[in-house]
Amino acid sequence: MQLPSTLLENAVNEFCKLPGIGKKTALRLVLHLLKQDVGQVQYFGETIARMRKDIKFCQRCYNISDADICSICANSMRKRQLICVVENIRDVIAIENTQQFSGTYHVLGGIISPLDGIGPDQLTIEALVHRVEAEQTEELIFALNPNIQGDTTIYYIQKKIQHLPCKVTTIARGIAFGGELEYADEMTLARSLTNRMPIESYISNR
Amino acid sequence: MQLPSTLLENAVNEFCKLPGIGKKTALRLVLHLLKQDVGQVQYFGETIARMRKDIKFCQRCYNISDADICSICANSMRKRQLICVVENIRDVIAIENTQQFSGTYHVLGGIISPLDGIGPDQLTIEALVHRVEAEQTEELIFALNPNIQGDTTIYYIQKKIQHLPCKVTTIARGIAFGGELEYADEMTLARSLTNRMPIESYISNR
Repeated sequence: MQLPSTLLENAVNEFCKLPGIGKKTALRLVLHLLKQDVGQVQYFGETIARMRKDIKFCQRCYNISDADICSICANSMRKRQLICVVENIRDVIAIENTQQFSGTYHVLGGIISPLDGIGPDQLTIEALVHRVEAEQTEELIFALNPNIQGDTTIYYIQKKIQHLPCKVTTIARGIAFGGELEYADEMTLARSLTNRMPIESYISNR
Repeated sequence: MQLPSTLLENAVNEFCKLPGIGKKTALRLVLHLLKQDVGQVQYFGETIARMRKDIKFCQRCYNISDADICSICANSMRKRQLICVVENIRDVIAIENTQQFSGTYHVLGGIISPLDGIGPDQLTIEALVHRVEAEQTEELIFALNPNIQGDTTIYYIQKKIQHLPCKVTTIARGIAFGGELEYADEMTLARSLTNRMPIESYISNR
């Protein structure tokens, strides 16, 4: 695709670097911006750049934050003794949306994945271990995606804190609500049988 | 969706203003940018803002351009006597990609659409009429989308230049290559029968 202007081409190329945006979509976005006011587009560019430059990460849980300590960690109503370990900030948002969790978080910033070159040192695991030790955490809930990398990460962290008197749990795996048994994969179905739960606790949690 | 930072929220809101980008996609894009270098994101923002601020429109054909006259109009190999009238710059790019057109363009900047509040005065129709007059254009090829608004625009412009010795044509309408007769709409099929073409010209154009 030959574009008639290098300014246009540069802008399209920048949008193309974003995930899931190809050249045609990028062109559509750029041409949309071309129709907006100069000031509005200037504001668009500045807002994105400022976000990257000024955003902070909570010194306690590594969640994104405007201050040194994020609003969740700073909230005295949240149980500091209960830490939910997640891969990234999207997971924090997803769990917060359920409005069912009253503890705090710890954002790992990824999961251990040797194939992608991500080892424990690139994650905030060391900080988590210190935190569990210093804050005398009562329970660590792992809410990682159910795959090999997630399980490896859980195993690694569990080894690191096994000398501490901290309970370690993981969110339940099983058939999703609205899911159909016949379409569930074998692994999920097999595990959901092994980890079957008493009907009383199932009913009381509805 | 509650976001943990106003900087993040502002950036997500800016992305949400783009066509076809909802809040979840916007968040994914912003979190991707968060992982990039500060300088890289700064460059992203600046490139978009600069594009909007510095881009020019060709004074002859209103195509997007880096200079006062676009590269197509400035190319002495292109036939200036042959003008293809299109709605927007995306159409210019589409036709250029076919590498079959050796004339120049005229970008209307939209089509007459009273329902959307777009009248002839908001388009570059006046400039087109002047251009046909001044440049003694031999042929005007309309390459507008085949709908009521497109036909209205063709009719309006044709009325304006009917006193000039300029041939007026439109790109062929018919069954698309690879299209299936049985799925074609009645209008297209009926018109393709009415405007049937001699088999010799069909074969020679293949």
